[in-house]
Amino acid sequence: MQSLRVALGERAYPIHVGAGILGEAALYAPHLEGRTAAIVTNAVVAPLYLARLHAAFAACGARVVDITLEDGEQAKRWETLDAIVGAMLAARCDRRCVVVALGGGVVGDLAGFAAAVYQRGVPFIQVPTTLLAQVDSSVGGKTGINHALGKNMIGAFHQPLAVIADVGSLATLPARELRAGIAEVIKHALVLDASFFEWLETNIERLRAGDAEALTHAVLRSCELKAGVVAADERESGLRAILNFGHTFGHAIEAGVGYGSWLHGEAVAAGMVMAAELSARAGALDPSTVARVRSLVARAGLPVAGPRLAPERYLELMTVDKKAAAGRIRFVTLASIGRAALRDDIDLAAARAAIAACSPSAAAAQ
Amino acid sequence: MQSLRVALGERAYPIHVGAGILGEAALYAPHLEGRTAAIVTNAVVAPLYLARLHAAFAACGARVVDITLEDGEQAKRWETLDAIVGAMLAARCDRRCVVVALGGGVVGDLAGFAAAVYQRGVPFIQVPTTLLAQVDSSVGGKTGINHALGKNMIGAFHQPLAVIADVGSLATLPARELRAGIAEVIKHALVLDASFFEWLETNIERLRAGDAEALTHAVLRSCELKAGVVAADERESGLRAILNFGHTFGHAIEAGVGYGSWLHGEAVAAGMVMAAELSARAGALDPSTVARVRSLVARAGLPVAGPRLAPERYLELMTVDKKAAAGRIRFVTLASIGRAALRDDIDLAAARAAIAACSPSAAAAQ
Repeated sequence: MQSLRVALGERAYPIHVGAGILGEAALYAPHLEGRTAAIVTNAVVAPLYLARLHAAFAACGARVVDITLEDGEQAKRWETLDAIVGAMLAARCDRRCVVVALGGGVVGDLAGFAAAVYQRGVPFIQVPTTLLAQVDSSVGGKTGINHALGKNMIGAFHQPLAVIADVGSLATLPARELRAGIAEVIKHALVLDASFFEWLETNIERLRAGDAEALTHAVLRSCELKAGVVAADERESGLRAILNFGHTFGHAIEAGVGYGSWLHGEAVAAGMVMAAELSARAGALDPSTVARVRSLVARAGLPVAGPRLAPERYLELMTVDKKAAAGRIRFVTLASIGRAALRDDIDLAAARAAIAACSPSAAAAQ
Repeated sequence: MQSLRVALGERAYPIHVGAGILGEAALYAPHLEGRTAAIVTNAVVAPLYLARLHAAFAACGARVVDITLEDGEQAKRWETLDAIVGAMLAARCDRRCVVVALGGGVVGDLAGFAAAVYQRGVPFIQVPTTLLAQVDSSVGGKTGINHALGKNMIGAFHQPLAVIADVGSLATLPARELRAGIAEVIKHALVLDASFFEWLETNIERLRAGDAEALTHAVLRSCELKAGVVAADERESGLRAILNFGHTFGHAIEAGVGYGSWLHGEAVAAGMVMAAELSARAGALDPSTVARVRSLVARAGLPVAGPRLAPERYLELMTVDKKAAAGRIRFVTLASIGRAALRDDIDLAAARAAIAACSPSAAAAQ
């Protein structure tokens, strides 16, 4: 097991990464002794890991309340949050209780937001069981639900007490979801760490094969990189926005095709290729680097082209994104591998061209 | 106009109190210039004050979005919050927008919570138009909605940028609601300031008559007292709980008779008399002081007796209150006028006796 600390002053917390650590009582004991733990999970994860977490919590002397949600992104709505709060109230959870998120990004977003608003805020622990959640959504304190008019439009910044990332749990993850998680790993390397990107170029097949040692390194390094950014800009007033590399295009893809048909990581993968293309067209990035980005994304088994969607539809969808300040589209661009920049002066013609270069037909021609 | 500052470090904010200040653009300008202001109000308050606020905001160069809710406590539910968020998204409010709460406690709780969770948090300004909101709910950052299983069970601590309390707006307030607000003024004096209590004993009739000078003093002093407590204990981990004096009994009254039939302030008024009786029975307070409390509450036109509700039903309702730690009932008691204490060692027999002493029949016999 390896550990790191997210430096957020009085909200600082540890991230533990390793194979088989999910059931280690010692990791939970400091937070749970003599308390009630409300475990929020879903119907897919519960049969796999809930019993092990129960045993660990029992060893900590915690009272346990189970709350099992439906699986899937559509669970991120008011009704589910209300059900979590209702179950906690029915079980008489008081302000000293701890919410535990056991599952992927959806469970973490819902459980974290429930913890943020339950009786105006109780602590929570993340036990992410998908790669996407381990390398991205469980770190940084973003929680929330969707609104009919936009994804993640309702939520809170609420930092966990601890994150326990067991790469052993990735063995039960469908291959497609593992690949989707790798997209965010690539993103962290692209915007922050050239040598990590080189490591990925060497080790991408080990990651796809589920090698525990490679996964531990990738998760830990991703968390370190993200934690550094979060510590510098907890509430996304500036720097943190670079972590949205590929996400402006990616969110447009997800919204354009309807949430759920593309996985978030898949949309981000194609979005990163578009953002690299855009960077080159804006004169910021060497075209050979775009090819390196495209190549690694393809080797990860991720899409390098977007869906059939008109460039104008992308632009329309991107202007309602919540990172768009005052109606302008702010893009995260690359200057080189490992160095990103925020730009709100990009000519929309360049964006159209980047989208066209990543259209299904352009990809077929390559 | 008089002003004070709530000392919360980087979340510090001013409270301005005066007659006719609601339309003063200079008070809003520092927060609104070049931004979008989403004014959340209700159908009763809008015809009275919305036009004046609009004119003030126009003078600040702000774009204004109006969101008018239904009136009443039942509005504090998910659906209303969702409607506020939906209206803000439809109007393309970005993260730089400011939510403005124009109305009483319900509007403040809803608008504040919407601001806390809209795109993970945007700032807000309180423009309270009821006495209860001016002296209590607009100060301290508590926001939230109700759950079917309990009041204010879902919410956030979210401090405003500023509070603009125009006592002129109390002229349009029904007399019953003015009296309900006076209950919280009395509470602040009782737990924190003996000389303010004496001032109230002298000036209670001026307050009930709506005298602007007396109201300005009462609102300002209440806010100062509450702000001092909030500054010392923002998230209610200790000291702040003394502001719940009368509320443990009061919440039981509201829940027992069904929310809405008693106003919150009325329930708190009877609850304060019960808490004073309890303090005397626990040996903490002189019986003659209980008589002073009862007398001032009665002169304020507020109930000194609870509804017809069995003592056991009170105890049952009080143990689910969110201030109850680990199943125990924690009471706020008085040691003398101006001095409160938290007690979780109170014999429930004393609580039963205090409730009985404030039953409708006991009141009739006095």
